[in-house]
Amino acid sequence: MDLTKIKDPSFLKKLSNDELDSLALEIRKFLIEKLSITGGHLGANLGVVELTLALHQHFNSPQDKLIFDVGHQSYIHKMLTGRTSQFDTLRQYKGLCGFPKMSESEHDVWEAGHSSTSLSAAMGMTIARDVKGEDNFILPIIGDGALTGGMALEALNHIGHEKKNIIVILNDNEMSIANNVGALHNALGRMRSAGKYNRVKDELEWLMKKIPAVGGRIAQTAERVKDSMKYFMVPGMLFEEFGFTYYGPVDGHDFNDLQENIQYAKKTDGPVLIHVITQKGKGYSPAELDMKDRWHGVGPYKIDSGEKIKPVNAPPAWSGVVSGALQKIARTDNRLTVITPAMILGSKLDKFQEEFPDRLFDVGIAEQHATTMAGGMATQGLKPFLVIYSTFLQRAYDQLLHDVCRQNLNVAFGIDRAGLVGADGETHQGVFDIAFLRHLPNMVLMMPKDENECQHMVHTALEYNDGPIAMRFPRGNALGVPMDTSFKQIPIGSWEVLEDGTDATILTFGTTIKMALEARAALKEKGFSVKVVNARFIKPLDEDMLHELMIENRPILTIEEAILQGGFGSAILEFAETHNYKNVDIQRMGIPDKFVEHGDVPELLEEIGLTRDTVIDKLKQIMPSKQQRA
Amino acid sequence: MDLTKIKDPSFLKKLSNDELDSLALEIRKFLIEKLSITGGHLGANLGVVELTLALHQHFNSPQDKLIFDVGHQSYIHKMLTGRTSQFDTLRQYKGLCGFPKMSESEHDVWEAGHSSTSLSAAMGMTIARDVKGEDNFILPIIGDGALTGGMALEALNHIGHEKKNIIVILNDNEMSIANNVGALHNALGRMRSAGKYNRVKDELEWLMKKIPAVGGRIAQTAERVKDSMKYFMVPGMLFEEFGFTYYGPVDGHDFNDLQENIQYAKKTDGPVLIHVITQKGKGYSPAELDMKDRWHGVGPYKIDSGEKIKPVNAPPAWSGVVSGALQKIARTDNRLTVITPAMILGSKLDKFQEEFPDRLFDVGIAEQHATTMAGGMATQGLKPFLVIYSTFLQRAYDQLLHDVCRQNLNVAFGIDRAGLVGADGETHQGVFDIAFLRHLPNMVLMMPKDENECQHMVHTALEYNDGPIAMRFPRGNALGVPMDTSFKQIPIGSWEVLEDGTDATILTFGTTIKMALEARAALKEKGFSVKVVNARFIKPLDEDMLHELMIENRPILTIEEAILQGGFGSAILEFAETHNYKNVDIQRMGIPDKFVEHGDVPELLEEIGLTRDTVIDKLKQIMPSKQQRA
Repeated sequence: MDLTKIKDPSFLKKLSNDELDSLALEIRKFLIEKLSITGGHLGANLGVVELTLALHQHFNSPQDKLIFDVGHQSYIHKMLTGRTSQFDTLRQYKGLCGFPKMSESEHDVWEAGHSSTSLSAAMGMTIARDVKGEDNFILPIIGDGALTGGMALEALNHIGHEKKNIIVILNDNEMSIANNVGALHNALGRMRSAGKYNRVKDELEWLMKKIPAVGGRIAQTAERVKDSMKYFMVPGMLFEEFGFTYYGPVDGHDFNDLQENIQYAKKTDGPVLIHVITQKGKGYSPAELDMKDRWHGVGPYKIDSGEKIKPVNAPPAWSGVVSGALQKIARTDNRLTVITPAMILGSKLDKFQEEFPDRLFDVGIAEQHATTMAGGMATQGLKPFLVIYSTFLQRAYDQLLHDVCRQNLNVAFGIDRAGLVGADGETHQGVFDIAFLRHLPNMVLMMPKDENECQHMVHTALEYNDGPIAMRFPRGNALGVPMDTSFKQIPIGSWEVLEDGTDATILTFGTTIKMALEARAALKEKGFSVKVVNARFIKPLDEDMLHELMIENRPILTIEEAILQGGFGSAILEFAETHNYKNVDIQRMGIPDKFVEHGDVPELLEEIGLTRDTVIDKLKQIMPSKQQRA
Repeated sequence: MDLTKIKDPSFLKKLSNDELDSLALEIRKFLIEKLSITGGHLGANLGVVELTLALHQHFNSPQDKLIFDVGHQSYIHKMLTGRTSQFDTLRQYKGLCGFPKMSESEHDVWEAGHSSTSLSAAMGMTIARDVKGEDNFILPIIGDGALTGGMALEALNHIGHEKKNIIVILNDNEMSIANNVGALHNALGRMRSAGKYNRVKDELEWLMKKIPAVGGRIAQTAERVKDSMKYFMVPGMLFEEFGFTYYGPVDGHDFNDLQENIQYAKKTDGPVLIHVITQKGKGYSPAELDMKDRWHGVGPYKIDSGEKIKPVNAPPAWSGVVSGALQKIARTDNRLTVITPAMILGSKLDKFQEEFPDRLFDVGIAEQHATTMAGGMATQGLKPFLVIYSTFLQRAYDQLLHDVCRQNLNVAFGIDRAGLVGADGETHQGVFDIAFLRHLPNMVLMMPKDENECQHMVHTALEYNDGPIAMRFPRGNALGVPMDTSFKQIPIGSWEVLEDGTDATILTFGTTIKMALEARAALKEKGFSVKVVNARFIKPLDEDMLHELMIENRPILTIEEAILQGGFGSAILEFAETHNYKNVDIQRMGIPDKFVEHGDVPELLEEIGLTRDTVIDKLKQIMPSKQQRA
């Protein structure tokens, strides 16, 4: 069939399972082709083709609410709800979003990007349904990896208690973003291997109801005999303990099995969990055979071979520079431990793990635990280095504040994907970290200008013994500068003048140094002389240099690829206010007070107005004109 | 014995259980007497007298690490580690802290205040021990309420997976801060009623090992028979599923039972959980009989009757004003639901719950879930109002950002205990919320000047339909002003001139309005004329009024009982920069870049330098002198 003709999923109700099978095949072919050009989350979507079809066949979206946890597995849902023809623009500027998006379709009832939010959202919708006296199904679809996130477990606990009708689809692909960790994962493994018992479950429940009610001690023992029998019959006892009715394990690629269990679930009162086993990458052998989940989020690739199409001779990735430095340091510093919340591959820690398996701790999707655990290590004299994406560090704000900064513990943070991230879009932009870290007492925050400074900052962070210290670094590849062979310590709070000048000063750091230098060069041709400072410490500021600059009293322009409210530029305004520099003209450039959607970073910077040309314009406005100076 | 003579817990090793019983009696008598004067967390501490004694008897602190979750139950620990004589100063300025404090004693190996951090801290210390090749016991002591916090569940999942030696003490008092909610709590109830099976457990394990290993299908069935038998014998199967060895339930007031299970645990490899049942308030009948947990954190009381000593004719509590307004609104607005994370009593929501049991949702200690669940409700047209302490909202920063603000959902927040909170100290000061909320796109943030404006703001929040809106309000009692009988809407972003003036303008809100008005009055006597503005919207600012003020070009002083970095004052600096008001003298007063310890709020404000007199001094510095003006 012509997939682009699908307007809504209602046609699925009339299809036979044979027809569904061939539709699944067509969808897979479409995704493998389209994503070979645009890139995207191939593996996860190939795993949920049958599941998504079965859900849309047996429920009525949007009255029934399909809530995709994380959301990167919603491509088939997008295709079934009239968006197939937009896949050429997937994850591109103004194109189809890689996650559910309310503005795209009424079928997208909840947006995500971060994991583990679907159960809480579903509980809110369930309560709303019941308060309003309506009647529909609420269906969070959550992966086994996302289930171990703290907020998902909080929700599980609440849902199991309230006993409202809600159907949780556990999409167990035996591999979340990284190999799964955690006791819950081990329990899922036991459930998978236990085989199917749900067919006898109804009979068992019936039988158990026949056991007469008795009082006192005997009643207790009878209860326990019943529970024990149930435990033998029902592999998902863990979920039953949490108050759910468990169905599964279900073969997520078998329509019969899916349909049967969905029908059980629709008839069951109270919270239900359907445990669906799927295979990531199903139907595309390079992805199926991938044991390390390198097909989670991919760029373009050659369909036949699965070979990734990558730029040749690209500079090293920032995350690789950080992990490489950590590996080098770990060889001589026994105190170093590295922690990651399920991002071994994303943060390129696989080689570190190979060399130091006992000093690399992947805690799964558990940013709060990761942060406070690092604090616990620090109390005992270790030097924990937590590598974490900027956007995911948001999850650990209180742990940073209450546990690490308040106790002033020596935890080092490598904040990956800081700044705009591009295709993942507004849920993943790492643009808030300066604003949420800068007001935490005791925190040191820095950002390197290139990969050589980056390796020195990793070393500096691990040599620092006065409390928490964080280095933010961007997504993607570094600059390709030569690397020093030995580490240097960078004095805490020290900035560096990159280019001198007398008409104005730019204070900036990290990725925006490039546009500052380019603007300087362009203005130089017009006779202006602009100083450019690598303000590599965002906190503490280089107060000595700032005093000099304020006394010089030339216009100052701050540039940051981060939210302006409470950001680095505000720190400079605060400094001027605190020290009573009343007449210095300070101007700030950065990201305004709104969320930034997906697109290539240069396109986004253009939209925001953060380019070489806008920097030139801004400088022209604030610099004394040639006439005035003459 | 003279309790003040205790220097360290080593003497406990020689005591008989009879001697321990009488020591427990003395400790209880001491606490009941001391706390009747100072106030403090009486109930929780009376519940853990025997448990704390037994732990200090069988382990060697500080080599073995006792980690008190939340920490308010550490009073007996403080007494046993040489701090008994300091109890007269409990929770007072420069006095004994109400929570563990590293600076007080080497026996305080971890500080807390917020719940659910102990397991992560313990795991960090356990890893450190093993990396360093040391040998000691790590003992997190966590309540049943704290266990449902997301980060505790994340930690449980990781600990159960890693299989390191760690002994979790689950202090199950059947009542955390409020009545417990959650499926986990129900499971604990089943464990309690199951009675003791641990004595037969060793034999069971031995027996099961005798079942010969077989392959294939039979092996799987054999495994399940074993698990099933175990389920019958071991009440804590939920924890066993998580990878723990479970001991319990243990009578937490019976030294024999405690000692026996501690000894089992010490000999067990891998993670252990001892399930200890305790009674909050044990040994003091007014607290024992308290079913509503009104003895959780108390002020002074009469020992004989248990009657609380309270100021007469005090104005209503802020939290009561908010819940009262909610109750009134709920009678006509069916869309209103109220959510609290385990703070029904603290936020005075008990009457709301009585009147609207189906529209009040206590989710337990689960701030992340509470926030995103509110978001889910909002997508379906409800008007959720989440009442949450400022310091606990820190836990939901990412949920605020990624779920509520990014999707621009109509969730209203009542931020309780905003500003300095006093005796609970640095873990609980609500001074970061402005800095962490102000940079979130779409967020509206306000604070009322008195309880009448407060009720109007509750109404305003619920009438607002353009996204999230938050009202912060202080701890303690309001001002006692007359209340309007009907609600008014306050225009979003509108400030109010309280007193006019021509020499300078103070912009402030909430609790600091009082010192501003007092400073104005004092300066008026000296011939100065100061304008005082109720800047009740922290975001958005009243831009119209600000433009006027900037054009007037008189000195501006901002005052906030909140952290200065990125705070309200910085918003005014940012406004001036954005709109190119270069010459206006703007000065900020607020809380500097450090954590504020416990003490009475006026003492803390004095220490910070935020008083009527410092405001007067600051204004004198920035106002044109009489001479200049003449």
